Amino acid sequence: MTAHTVTAKTIHTDAVIVGAGPVGLFQAFQLGLQDIRSHIIDALPHVGGQCVELYADKPIYDIPGIPVCTGLELVAQLQNQVKPFTPNFHLNQEVTEVVRSDDGLFSVHTSAGQHFVCKVLHIAAGVGAFQARKLNIDGAAELEGTHVHERLGDASRFAGQDVVVMGGEESAVAAALKLTLETQALSQKPRSVTLMHRRDVFSAEPALLQAMRDAVASGKLQLQIGQPTALLCSNHQLHAVQVATPDGQTLERPAQHVVALLGLSPKLGPIAHWGLALERKQLVVNTETFATHVAGIFAVGDINTYPGKKKLILCGFHEATLAAFGAAAIVHPTRKTLLQYTTTSTELHRLLGLV
Amino acid sequence: MTAHTVTAKTIHTDAVIVGAGPVGLFQAFQLGLQDIRSHIIDALPHVGGQCVELYADKPIYDIPGIPVCTGLELVAQLQNQVKPFTPNFHLNQEVTEVVRSDDGLFSVHTSAGQHFVCKVLHIAAGVGAFQARKLNIDGAAELEGTHVHERLGDASRFAGQDVVVMGGEESAVAAALKLTLETQALSQKPRSVTLMHRRDVFSAEPALLQAMRDAVASGKLQLQIGQPTALLCSNHQLHAVQVATPDGQTLERPAQHVVALLGLSPKLGPIAHWGLALERKQLVVNTETFATHVAGIFAVGDINTYPGKKKLILCGFHEATLAAFGAAAIVHPTRKTLLQYTTTSTELHRLLGLV
Repeated sequence: MTAHTVTAKTIHTDAVIVGAGPVGLFQAFQLGLQDIRSHIIDALPHVGGQCVELYADKPIYDIPGIPVCTGLELVAQLQNQVKPFTPNFHLNQEVTEVVRSDDGLFSVHTSAGQHFVCKVLHIAAGVGAFQARKLNIDGAAELEGTHVHERLGDASRFAGQDVVVMGGEESAVAAALKLTLETQALSQKPRSVTLMHRRDVFSAEPALLQAMRDAVASGKLQLQIGQPTALLCSNHQLHAVQVATPDGQTLERPAQHVVALLGLSPKLGPIAHWGLALERKQLVVNTETFATHVAGIFAVGDINTYPGKKKLILCGFHEATLAAFGAAAIVHPTRKTLLQYTTTSTELHRLLGLV
Repeated sequence: MTAHTVTAKTIHTDAVIVGAGPVGLFQAFQLGLQDIRSHIIDALPHVGGQCVELYADKPIYDIPGIPVCTGLELVAQLQNQVKPFTPNFHLNQEVTEVVRSDDGLFSVHTSAGQHFVCKVLHIAAGVGAFQARKLNIDGAAELEGTHVHERLGDASRFAGQDVVVMGGEESAVAAALKLTLETQALSQKPRSVTLMHRRDVFSAEPALLQAMRDAVASGKLQLQIGQPTALLCSNHQLHAVQVATPDGQTLERPAQHVVALLGLSPKLGPIAHWGLALERKQLVVNTETFATHVAGIFAVGDINTYPGKKKLILCGFHEATLAAFGAAAIVHPTRKTLLQYTTTSTELHRLLGLV
């Protein structure tokens, strides 16, 4: 070995779970009840997945035994529940490679350089991973990071300039309003702020919508309904956005900056390249153990498909439970996997840290 | 029609659910989300089924999103959750007959003379129904109700007599203690109280066990370890119980009364005679809609079986959810059954009574 060798940090564990959403968290809990330790990988910087990304403060009514809870509350409860099994989280990284070695173990690499060797792999990756939907106009890619932005970021960088915020969802409305805020020093404000969307329909909280309409009425915020058709540049410097309005006109809006908040779109990511059976981008599983056609790889939650599949969190909980029994047969091949009840089993009480 | 005609009270409804346990309650909720109204029948006098009968005050740790709850708490939460759909409960009665008529509707009769005509039938009957385990000794059946009792009932009926309480579970320990209570007037007390069990191991709360041991130490309660082998009678009047002790002796215990609290045993009840496919007393279902082989009859929870089946409450929740989609295709054949989310669907918000 020479100094050139890069020694990857390798973690040997029973199970790797891809996805720290509600189903991934409950997967760790059910594996724990089977005496299987797990590491959880997620592309997002926080646990909770789609449930936190999209429903953080929104009510969910169909979790059994919980008449109503928000996405954040559900995730907090699931984190409490899994605590006895102290799963290890590896956030902000995607799985980049999965290889099965001859000894039947899986070698899992992540984009952060983390390397796992495990006996079973549970994919609870929801709709894959989320990425910001890109502005789809000629030249947008070249201007990305300088004149076209996917995030609002520090508003002061737009001081004295013309900004067009594109999008019809809450994030776009909120960003447009933030740029027009009274509390900012005049010198830090943009010269003009335009909110642009293809229709005059915005989905945001009523209070936020009212604030936006008020800002438009008072002239602090420009509203432009229409589709962007071109980014007009001189010397690679953006100076305007060309817009096709619903009534067939073509206009130009002055803009040195475009903040394109067009929502998140799911992507399956590298999972698509692992060689698993896919049906409409979903992983095909059996309903006995929710195993894929690769022994040792299970798929649970929104990412799998089988006859009757419904993309509901509560269904993912069931799938993770049966997948844990499937995993136990692989991780503990000599133990007889009996059904035990958490109410009465002293073995489960021991695993839960109750005795 | 003449005065002789007995007009059965008939209720026409979309769905009948057999079983008011956790899964039956959640079945009513999921049917409600599909705009299907239901009536729930249960053999017990209260809702909650096995969960309340066996785990009322015991902790359950594996309901997803609820790190710990008792059986009673879970049932109370499920009752809250189903409230928007105001299901009708018909307790204290068993289903005695299910007949499918030519128009595809089911005719369901109960032991209380109630009659339903419905489009779908959801069996969530757990392990069937519970019945008290009987004392299995020659002559016990003849003495039932006079000298052999399945319930403690009014303790004063044993005043001045010798009572043997049989059983090793909490109900037996509690009954034996109740008969020796200080607070009773001396004239109302039995002459002697014996707690009899085949081994010197009792399953009850520590405090109750301690109280029992104290009562034995102070001579207020007799403890007899051994198997009852005969009921000794004169003129059909019980006067003693013959016991085989673990060390091979045969003894006699004076007893005019035996209270046999031998626990509950499940029975499948009339469901066994409906002509559905059974496997080890479980109803065979598919995993797409949890339908039995009779179109329109679904089976969810502990009573069904399929490859991978685990008798867990959380699995029953999933089964009830997919069964509700299966029911919707029958009850609302012309509507397209789309997956909707309780967080975002205004249709589901309307059904939940939120708007």
